[in-house]
Amino acid sequence: MHSINPYEYGMPREAANFQALSPLTFIERAASVHPQRLAVINGALRQTWGQTYQRCIRLASALSQRGVGLGDTVAVIAPNGPAMFEAHFGVPMCGAVLNAINTRLDAEAVAFILQHGEAKVLLVDKEFGELVQRVTSHLPNRPLIIDIDDPEYAGGQLIGQFDYEALLAEGDPDYAWQLPADEWQAISLNYTSGTTGNPKGVVYHHRGAHLNALSNAMCWDMNRFPVYLWTLPMFHCNGWCFPWVMAAYVGVNVCLRHVRAEAIYPALAEHGVDHFCGAPIVLNMLANAADELKALKTQPVKVLTAGAAPPAAVIEAMEALDFRVTHVYGLTETYGPSVSCEWNSAWDKESAEQRARLKSRQGVRAPLLEGLMVANPDTLEPVAKDGETIGEIMMRGNVVMKGYLKNPSATAEAFAGGWFHSGDLAVWHADGYVEIKDRSKDIIISGGENISSIEVEDVLYRHPQILEAAVVAMPHSKWGETPCAFIAVKAGAQLDAAEVISFCQQHMARFKVPGHVVFTELPKTSTGKVQKFVLREQARALVV
Amino acid sequence: MHSINPYEYGMPREAANFQALSPLTFIERAASVHPQRLAVINGALRQTWGQTYQRCIRLASALSQRGVGLGDTVAVIAPNGPAMFEAHFGVPMCGAVLNAINTRLDAEAVAFILQHGEAKVLLVDKEFGELVQRVTSHLPNRPLIIDIDDPEYAGGQLIGQFDYEALLAEGDPDYAWQLPADEWQAISLNYTSGTTGNPKGVVYHHRGAHLNALSNAMCWDMNRFPVYLWTLPMFHCNGWCFPWVMAAYVGVNVCLRHVRAEAIYPALAEHGVDHFCGAPIVLNMLANAADELKALKTQPVKVLTAGAAPPAAVIEAMEALDFRVTHVYGLTETYGPSVSCEWNSAWDKESAEQRARLKSRQGVRAPLLEGLMVANPDTLEPVAKDGETIGEIMMRGNVVMKGYLKNPSATAEAFAGGWFHSGDLAVWHADGYVEIKDRSKDIIISGGENISSIEVEDVLYRHPQILEAAVVAMPHSKWGETPCAFIAVKAGAQLDAAEVISFCQQHMARFKVPGHVVFTELPKTSTGKVQKFVLREQARALVV
Repeated sequence: MHSINPYEYGMPREAANFQALSPLTFIERAASVHPQRLAVINGALRQTWGQTYQRCIRLASALSQRGVGLGDTVAVIAPNGPAMFEAHFGVPMCGAVLNAINTRLDAEAVAFILQHGEAKVLLVDKEFGELVQRVTSHLPNRPLIIDIDDPEYAGGQLIGQFDYEALLAEGDPDYAWQLPADEWQAISLNYTSGTTGNPKGVVYHHRGAHLNALSNAMCWDMNRFPVYLWTLPMFHCNGWCFPWVMAAYVGVNVCLRHVRAEAIYPALAEHGVDHFCGAPIVLNMLANAADELKALKTQPVKVLTAGAAPPAAVIEAMEALDFRVTHVYGLTETYGPSVSCEWNSAWDKESAEQRARLKSRQGVRAPLLEGLMVANPDTLEPVAKDGETIGEIMMRGNVVMKGYLKNPSATAEAFAGGWFHSGDLAVWHADGYVEIKDRSKDIIISGGENISSIEVEDVLYRHPQILEAAVVAMPHSKWGETPCAFIAVKAGAQLDAAEVISFCQQHMARFKVPGHVVFTELPKTSTGKVQKFVLREQARALVV
Repeated sequence: MHSINPYEYGMPREAANFQALSPLTFIERAASVHPQRLAVINGALRQTWGQTYQRCIRLASALSQRGVGLGDTVAVIAPNGPAMFEAHFGVPMCGAVLNAINTRLDAEAVAFILQHGEAKVLLVDKEFGELVQRVTSHLPNRPLIIDIDDPEYAGGQLIGQFDYEALLAEGDPDYAWQLPADEWQAISLNYTSGTTGNPKGVVYHHRGAHLNALSNAMCWDMNRFPVYLWTLPMFHCNGWCFPWVMAAYVGVNVCLRHVRAEAIYPALAEHGVDHFCGAPIVLNMLANAADELKALKTQPVKVLTAGAAPPAAVIEAMEALDFRVTHVYGLTETYGPSVSCEWNSAWDKESAEQRARLKSRQGVRAPLLEGLMVANPDTLEPVAKDGETIGEIMMRGNVVMKGYLKNPSATAEAFAGGWFHSGDLAVWHADGYVEIKDRSKDIIISGGENISSIEVEDVLYRHPQILEAAVVAMPHSKWGETPCAFIAVKAGAQLDAAEVISFCQQHMARFKVPGHVVFTELPKTSTGKVQKFVLREQARALVV
């Protein structure tokens, strides 16, 4: 070896050969290379990349003039519209941090987030004006409130000092926005859904946002100029980083205020949509839509699904409609998807049902996730790849969050041992694919045996008359716990408990068969996930 | 603003959320996720990603055991075969730097490079054994020489201490290779062709190699699992980073020792190749191949071309054969291509000839190049986007080299003013596309007017009987300089100077028409570029 390493001599990072990685570079390039290409569609609105970039610069400038800068939070409560999209660029362009808030939260949760995140400015769509009015009227530090007055929406309430277009008009179109000095600088703040305790504020940085945008596009085999339908809320992990993907790939953002089959199918047809993302519940809704809606779709459409384990039956139904489903998995802490059920050509010869089942597994590292394992959470010892031993899913690498805002102890706990602990319990198959068996708290322990509620639900979804199913633990005098199934049936279906139990007996080990079946509509969280804690209470009440 | 920025509190880089960007992660992932997929084809050899990764680890381990590590250089003189491919991973896995040497260089140039790069180990394919024997027999610091004894090649000479397979056998398959501690660490060393003065050693780092691999794939709309034919030598800018692209996209590397139409067309057919890269000279060769060879190709094939401005006529001829050509541009200093003539849908309606002409321009920033401009080299003032004003092409960003090895003054000069100075003269069109007019030294100045030698050559290539053309300045008593055309005609063609001049008069301004025409074979550099300095001497001799 050399005493002096010649490769470290006279070659420092400098302006010509080093810049902070940032998704802001993506929109600057899109606007500079393809200024005339369409960027945003919202109802009658058509906006090019050149125009969109100009509006983002104005937003950054106007915020900066009002004293917003490095380390400040700008919150948004809005549907997937142009303002929400622009905020993904305009807010970080002035050095601030974007906090997109879940519109389905109640007033108490929104108040907590605005207080904890210390938002200085809040952009609010008039659909949520009344909610925000209730929240902010008694906040000690009331942010500057700006209305988003979307002409495409008739209802709602304007409650702000002035509106978003007036804010943009204040901005200087020649404002010299800067990339962050350090790519580790925060770009956004996303609160976890907080089913237990207060939500935690997950901080993303420019480097991770840049890299996960590329990783998501890679795992979807996306080419340039996609036409993307915004079914996934941008308040979920910044729409899984897809605002930034769209800028990198110079795509068209087709906005959608309400996620309904009656709006989605016509949008697919009208705009030639070729990509969208959505939770399995959205897929289920599309698979069960009226035939005249389904008939509107003529092109193949790529779908990325995550947020819950998709029942194989839902995947199979979607594939039959030529929706090409890729199942991905991640958490708010991993910028959305960071694991992908990457297709293996060895599966081509399998039956449609078996292929859907293979696809319903969470999968392998996304292209730019550096580490993934299923391990014992105490020893960090990886479990055997036997498809049986349960461990915790853990990730590491550049697409793992910067940390939790103002919560170093929770950050340290989440990163214990140099890995992010997901809290999801899974097995590792011999082919290297990870399959979630449950959240730690959702596992059912019956007679000392672990029962995966997901596995039981997966069987239930295969019943042709079942629309939705959720399984939780019910206390049992002999076995400790036993599975209790909550079932929503399809419109017009006839189904009784005996038939459900008989169906389960044919498709699973006896000890996993639900001891009790309840027909009901399923309670959901603001993020569209089934509220299992509500069901657990109901199940407990059934025993008493 | 906050006195303390809450987004910088308690969220440091740590093992769970930060890793050095490196293309080594790509092969580790390919082997871990798709161990059974085919990675390398070389004649009868078939090697999976799992096997290839194992061999790279063994190489790293064996080098490490022999004292090679951080800051050391490992050189390779070999064609595009498995060993060359593996060296792109195995060498940096032990912390060392890969120096792939142009096999077309003469002994003197190879000796200079081995001395300047201080190679400790030299892997040499037996085809180049005799050359290396001549070079190293009188080198003061003779490297450890390892033979690559490719069973697919019959000739050549073994000259090393032992062979590559024996070296791998020394390695520990469980060697714990490490990512670089810093992504700014050097990964490879590539010497410029050095038409003037000694070649310079361009140093790449892990960060840039990772990012330019992704950028190249993006500008080619590459999806996972490509089948890639190795027509482009890996000793050119590490094959434009494509060994690393192939690992990221889990592709098949179809190796090719000699770049001939008689080998390329059968390879396209046999392996279902869908991608390759090559200089315009390779495209020209394929476009002019025998019809029975052309008939072998049945699938569309994507082609990336760079290394010289491709004559529009060559692009047009290739497109007619359903080769889908993307023209890219870059230099050794920008990891190969960093500018791409990205297709603009507004051109769809143009004629095939006009489309080829638009494509022959160098283009716009590749997806991950942060800055590109055509500017006055002294003031760094961008030129007008008028398609006429000539300036120098300049780049900046993460895919610009780390610097020149042991040459801080050349590095500082190349990076003056915070931009990399390419030395290529170009105009900037109104649509933002850059078009090279010449290397600084190749411009012809006649009667005070600049004449682009490339522009004149482009016209000459459109003549159906001309195979190759090069235009240089010839001294002229009245005008100072006048263009002199050197022309190689197609097999069996009949052409005289008067016809060439008449053809030019129909297609260009009078002052640009060559004053003299010479029919000859064109002298080429080791990188396949026309040696214009040789032609300039010949042109000067014609006047005396």
